[in-house]
Amino acid sequence: VLVMSGGLGPTEDDRTTEAVALAAGQPLELRPDALEALRQRFARAGYELTPNNEKQAYLPRGATLLENTQGTAPGLMAPIGQCLVFCMPGVPREMKSMFDTRVVPLLENRLGARPALVRSLNTFGIGESKLDHRLADLLQAVDLEGCDVSLHYRTSFPTNRVILVLHEPGRERAPRVLDRLEQEIRRRIGKHVFGTDETSFSDAVVAALRRAGATLALAESCTGGLAGDLLTRAAGSSEVFQLGVVTYANAFKERLLGVPREVLQTHGAVSQACVEAMARGVRELAGATYGVAISGIAGPGGGSEGRPVGTVHLALAAEEGVRHVQRQFPFDRQRNKSLAAHVALALALREVGG
Amino acid sequence: VLVMSGGLGPTEDDRTTEAVALAAGQPLELRPDALEALRQRFARAGYELTPNNEKQAYLPRGATLLENTQGTAPGLMAPIGQCLVFCMPGVPREMKSMFDTRVVPLLENRLGARPALVRSLNTFGIGESKLDHRLADLLQAVDLEGCDVSLHYRTSFPTNRVILVLHEPGRERAPRVLDRLEQEIRRRIGKHVFGTDETSFSDAVVAALRRAGATLALAESCTGGLAGDLLTRAAGSSEVFQLGVVTYANAFKERLLGVPREVLQTHGAVSQACVEAMARGVRELAGATYGVAISGIAGPGGGSEGRPVGTVHLALAAEEGVRHVQRQFPFDRQRNKSLAAHVALALALREVGG
Repeated sequence: VLVMSGGLGPTEDDRTTEAVALAAGQPLELRPDALEALRQRFARAGYELTPNNEKQAYLPRGATLLENTQGTAPGLMAPIGQCLVFCMPGVPREMKSMFDTRVVPLLENRLGARPALVRSLNTFGIGESKLDHRLADLLQAVDLEGCDVSLHYRTSFPTNRVILVLHEPGRERAPRVLDRLEQEIRRRIGKHVFGTDETSFSDAVVAALRRAGATLALAESCTGGLAGDLLTRAAGSSEVFQLGVVTYANAFKERLLGVPREVLQTHGAVSQACVEAMARGVRELAGATYGVAISGIAGPGGGSEGRPVGTVHLALAAEEGVRHVQRQFPFDRQRNKSLAAHVALALALREVGG
Repeated sequence: VLVMSGGLGPTEDDRTTEAVALAAGQPLELRPDALEALRQRFARAGYELTPNNEKQAYLPRGATLLENTQGTAPGLMAPIGQCLVFCMPGVPREMKSMFDTRVVPLLENRLGARPALVRSLNTFGIGESKLDHRLADLLQAVDLEGCDVSLHYRTSFPTNRVILVLHEPGRERAPRVLDRLEQEIRRRIGKHVFGTDETSFSDAVVAALRRAGATLALAESCTGGLAGDLLTRAAGSSEVFQLGVVTYANAFKERLLGVPREVLQTHGAVSQACVEAMARGVRELAGATYGVAISGIAGPGGGSEGRPVGTVHLALAAEEGVRHVQRQFPFDRQRNKSLAAHVALALALREVGG
């Protein structure tokens, strides 16, 4: 079996289909079903179907069309000699969806193979090497009941996944063994685990706030709106998020959030006193359960001796009072912004016990 | 020459260095220079150097260390028989930086090869297939003076790059031919080109506003702060951006931006009347040259018969009046948000003639 991705697009340099046809010794044929699917997709999107898009409706004779529910380029399955070839689009989300919904069932069906059982624990606030260090003896420390399990790590900045793969899914003890491993991982690094499998960081934050019946207002500076974007990646976030303000200039920290001028003059905008006032101010302005504020130096410029690039102050205001944290990030501008936005939402997540 | 990336990290499943040592028949040796570089990097970042990180300081005997200025995993160059092997980290930004600053010079030096001359024109608002359609005969339409040029496309959603590759950089006519091609591309699709080479969309917007001496205030709803994040990806954005508000709930569209209650009741939040009032409101609140507003239905829920998921209204308010556009996006929640944020900034870019 050969599984590949990419080169199915409409442009001159997309040549996968042509290459498969050549290798299989089959002519390319216009497939009316593929053309109709393209027409409908373009009509729905209100785009014009250009002649080069029609190219995507040509498949090698005898090939099976794999529907692309996420984009325009259909995939295909075709035999080349003894080899069964799958071609998927190169756009990651299109490829992933096609692999799960089309390729895996066809492989199960044709080869009688069953995919491994996979469980991932999604973490924030602990690095990949520290994870590996804390979990190095995991597979020796837990009774695997003879199951063949492997442990993997996957970074999707700034979160890290711990992935358990159990290679004999047929065994009835398999789910029990995965549960036991998950329990041991949570015992060791539980406070960093925000969810399992497809649960994103945003999903976890929004779900925890919903469970608590709480709302969150955001006052951002160096993140520019990224914390609000992150929170609203989860559908349903409107139940917990009503207002964010991006007070990039100090004048608006004062005018909209009521940060005292003395605080800005004495401590500056990147300070504990400033983010605490911002958090209280936005909480009050929004009438929210929590107000979270971020102010820092994302870089590359703006750093100074006592406050280098990457310095970020964050605060969470609640009815009972204000919590403050300070961080020092070592990355480039956009990654420093991303880390700061994640830490801001993590403050709320911890507060509601998510 | 074999160039590869990935598997240089600190965890158990990172085995590239070990594999190269095995294939080269060389033992792994602790390299004090690599260890020292790791120590310094961790100290600067305020992180703890765990024992498994030290693994990254082991290299096959005789290998050349390739410094990683962007992360912890050093790269390496080692001969295996007749083959010169380069190993780079898998993290894209680390890999790209190492390729440009370490691998290319070594290749030039050892092989006397010169990298091709590359120019890219970065576009927004025109799809890859339409680009291909408009530029299909480009290389026939322009006098290449015998140069070997190829044309490529690269999508980085929602922007698209047109890439010109000229394969004999030594020729003195090379830059002239690239200029001529660029001119012809601009003649055909100029209004979609926002910059060349490493100029990002944010860079282009911020630069154009700076040139015009203009400031931009943002009133976001469905984008949740993403337009502000996008604008502030460019360093120096504080010169043109002072305030953004994310009025996710209608009450704040009314209270902070002065959207009349009748507008919300009669037309709803996703309407021309609402975004026009939001844009005027945020422009006034911020005292900015331009106010740009976004309100739409990002999905997956919230759509209705007359206003399906993907409907987005946008407006730009200036001293002279208000411009409105409506769009219908066919993607998932986060990509609809991203497109809306880009269209919002594109409104400002067009306004200042960028």
